[in-house]
Amino acid sequence: MSISTRKAGLKELAEFVDADFHGDPDTQISGIATLELAGTHDLSFFANRKYHKYLLSTQAAIVILKPDDLEQCPGSAILADDPYLSYAKIAAWLTQNTHQTTAIHPAAIIGESTQLGKNVTLAANVVIGQNCLIADNVVLDAGCVIADGVSIAENSHIFPNVSIYSGVKIGKNAIIHSGVVIGSDGFGIANDKGQWTKVPQLGSVVIGDNVEIGSNTTIDCGAIEDTVIEDGVKLDNLIQVAHNVHIGENTAIAGCVGIAGSTRIGKYCAIGGGAGILGHLNIADHVHITATSLVTKSISKPGVYSSGTPLQENALWHKNFVRFKQLDSLARRLNELENKTK
Amino acid sequence: MSISTRKAGLKELAEFVDADFHGDPDTQISGIATLELAGTHDLSFFANRKYHKYLLSTQAAIVILKPDDLEQCPGSAILADDPYLSYAKIAAWLTQNTHQTTAIHPAAIIGESTQLGKNVTLAANVVIGQNCLIADNVVLDAGCVIADGVSIAENSHIFPNVSIYSGVKIGKNAIIHSGVVIGSDGFGIANDKGQWTKVPQLGSVVIGDNVEIGSNTTIDCGAIEDTVIEDGVKLDNLIQVAHNVHIGENTAIAGCVGIAGSTRIGKYCAIGGGAGILGHLNIADHVHITATSLVTKSISKPGVYSSGTPLQENALWHKNFVRFKQLDSLARRLNELENKTK
Amino acid sequence: MSISTRKAGLKELAEFVDADFHGDPDTQISGIATLELAGTHDLSFFANRKYHKYLLSTQAAIVILKPDDLEQCPGSAILADDPYLSYAKIAAWLTQNTHQTTAIHPAAIIGESTQLGKNVTLAANVVIGQNCLIADNVVLDAGCVIADGVSIAENSHIFPNVSIYSGVKIGKNAIIHSGVVIGSDGFGIANDKGQWTKVPQLGSVVIGDNVEIGSNTTIDCGAIEDTVIEDGVKLDNLIQVAHNVHIGENTAIAGCVGIAGSTRIGKYCAIGGGAGILGHLNIADHVHITATSLVTKSISKPGVYSSGTPLQENALWHKNFVRFKQLDSLARRLNELENKTK
Repeated sequence: MSISTRKAGLKELAEFVDADFHGDPDTQISGIATLELAGTHDLSFFANRKYHKYLLSTQAAIVILKPDDLEQCPGSAILADDPYLSYAKIAAWLTQNTHQTTAIHPAAIIGESTQLGKNVTLAANVVIGQNCLIADNVVLDAGCVIADGVSIAENSHIFPNVSIYSGVKIGKNAIIHSGVVIGSDGFGIANDKGQWTKVPQLGSVVIGDNVEIGSNTTIDCGAIEDTVIEDGVKLDNLIQVAHNVHIGENTAIAGCVGIAGSTRIGKYCAIGGGAGILGHLNIADHVHITATSLVTKSISKPGVYSSGTPLQENALWHKNFVRFKQLDSLARRLNELENKTK
Repeated sequence: MSISTRKAGLKELAEFVDADFHGDPDTQISGIATLELAGTHDLSFFANRKYHKYLLSTQAAIVILKPDDLEQCPGSAILADDPYLSYAKIAAWLTQNTHQTTAIHPAAIIGESTQLGKNVTLAANVVIGQNCLIADNVVLDAGCVIADGVSIAENSHIFPNVSIYSGVKIGKNAIIHSGVVIGSDGFGIANDKGQWTKVPQLGSVVIGDNVEIGSNTTIDCGAIEDTVIEDGVKLDNLIQVAHNVHIGENTAIAGCVGIAGSTRIGKYCAIGGGAGILGHLNIADHVHITATSLVTKSISKPGVYSSGTPLQENALWHKNFVRFKQLDSLARRLNELENKTK
Repeated sequence: MSISTRKAGLKELAEFVDADFHGDPDTQISGIATLELAGTHDLSFFANRKYHKYLLSTQAAIVILKPDDLEQCPGSAILADDPYLSYAKIAAWLTQNTHQTTAIHPAAIIGESTQLGKNVTLAANVVIGQNCLIADNVVLDAGCVIADGVSIAENSHIFPNVSIYSGVKIGKNAIIHSGVVIGSDGFGIANDKGQWTKVPQLGSVVIGDNVEIGSNTTIDCGAIEDTVIEDGVKLDNLIQVAHNVHIGENTAIAGCVGIAGSTRIGKYCAIGGGAGILGHLNIADHVHITATSLVTKSISKPGVYSSGTPLQENALWHKNFVRFKQLDSLARRLNELENKTK
């Protein structure tokens, strides 16, 4: 259960998201909880049908749900077309932190010619290089290292121990979680009689507005031109974005995905966790790749794409696993048999 | 070869793990080595049959092994039912570091109202927020950043450059390796006409006693309730634990595993490296998932589960790879052929 | 487009890589760009045939290409057997940074008995333990934490927020990117009636000369002997190298690969992104594993190896996915049918 930072009533909350409601308009909530664990003063929501059984018995004072589910809700309700979206808006409003203290900690180190905007917060042991632009209301948490020539636009929040290499540009309202590395060298190596010669990585990274980047995700700089993350992109944790990748607006990528060099991913795409995308490919807008799929070719049509094999008990799986090696020969033998019996 | 910090004889070592021994009870060892590389003053062990050839010719002074393998051991031996476990206990005892210096480095920064227990070690550039509880004998290495309201229980050791977000609770005897991030926002986004709205991540992370977490692993905070890691869980490196995941007691998870949001994993499970587990699933106790398998459904029965295809030479593999696309049609054609020949 | 730090003419550049050229020997360039985006004062190269269309219309002043492609190049050209390699050498020369300032930042912390060579650069908040050897011309960027007894040889550059555990040895000319962890404990646990006992991790990590390690990659220390990375190895981002892995000279490994404990990978291997390699295996020299393959057995012959299934539209894929469970039974039924029709 999470405590709300402000009290609110049913009518007020419903109006905040332009929704109808059912129940006493003065029903008050003081916290937020799941359907299963909610107490009689909590707000909850019903969006994933897997949790239907908890709706029937929830003690929540108010549930945000679709109009069709109202009958099954024991308490008051806010009727929303998209309960998860309405919940997101209401929860943000209820838990808004209005008391951010801004300060430059004496143990922050700021390079020459670096410009700081208004209300910038630099925590202890932040290290900023030369010629950076840190815009208004930016928060850099402890242990962040920002190299020379970096720009970070208004209202961005960089969590502890993030490393940003020289020349990287980050847009407004960015949220960048701990351990993220942006602008490290791409994996550019050329073979010289068996030994590897490093190919200089001369580009940088340009990140648009309203981008969120999850913990320990890595984004390499471009080899010549820049790696580009467009506005509204959301990246989860432990994602690898190689040099010169281009990710289009409002694409969301789940954890542990790897994207190889120079691949372009369109707008409004969704990439499931653990997927791999090879290099130099083009992925169209509105493509959905399911979890742990491997993309080996460009995709020109919107749609949902998958690869992989089903989970089975190990002994059964092993029999099929071994047969996979015979798949082509099985197919040929079937062809022959068909010809024979014609 | 590793040098032992204390000398010990065969009889003493065998008694330490309640085991029988074979050979001169006064046989002394002064170091630890593998069977292959051991010298005449080293202790070794034989647990993995892949290394059987090295047992036959080992120079080790003492080998910990199963009674059945004694005949093949050229030197002295400790006879253990589980040689690896006995080795673990003996090696810990032989290499125990008894001279930990504890101190608060002058370059450590400690927030208001934070309480430190006895014998706490804070290395240089540790940054701790406000209202934290750092219990007796805790060690925080250089560059760790601990946000407000975090509690870390007795005897826990946090290695360099770890980031812990506000409100996280860590139990006793934790070992948390470098680069780990605990409590970062979960990947909660709601779609609003194509654009993503952030869903506030209001929960935290609760970690039980005796948990070890490998380098650069990330554990997100819960969306509303907490993400929970129970007692005795062991996590390897580069694992992603999403919001509201619940991992049961004594489950061990190998490197590069990704676990999506709200999935519950039971007790005594073993998850192989690189496996992926989708969200909102229930995995029973005593389930073993083999390496790089993808779990797309809940698992209600203990057992070993797998997915994936075998490695082959690329040219052969490619033929089978392509045939996979025809698998359903092959099956239908086989059905037809069977009907025809009935 | 990247600006060159020195001006150079066609003849001079061609001679630098021992290549013939075509065009006015005095053709000058002042920057580097891709074929697609090059302006009339830029150098470019043509190595990947996917970008052939851009060669035909490029405005680049000079293109590095194979002699056979000269006819299709609108401007001047350098004729190279391996254009990518020649580009790497020329680009390094053109963008060489000759003005590195070296200094020990006052906020760097250096332990007792640690020796620093000539021209060492220690940025702000670097923390170095006791008894380390930091050789000539080494650069440690801000926030790096180096534990006791570490040695780093000449000319190595460690980027921000890297963590190196005690006893690790790093060779000459290393490039280690942000967030890397070297020497953390391997995943050594022994089961004691359901609970896990930690197996002490007593070895360290030895890294040869000319090794590059990408962001947030983790390399565990050996359990008894050392984990070894030989000369010239190149590791990309977010790779997991478990305890006692041994990687042979000049092997290159792409991002998100996981290598389990005690596996030996030969020399001159190439491991594609996201691949998984199980523990205690031997991989021969000159083996190429394609992206996201799983290696479950040792490989004794050089060659290209793969596993995995093709990407398809989800609905089609799902039919084949389900049939995979029947693969063994399909094969048996085919056998029967063949016997029947004989």
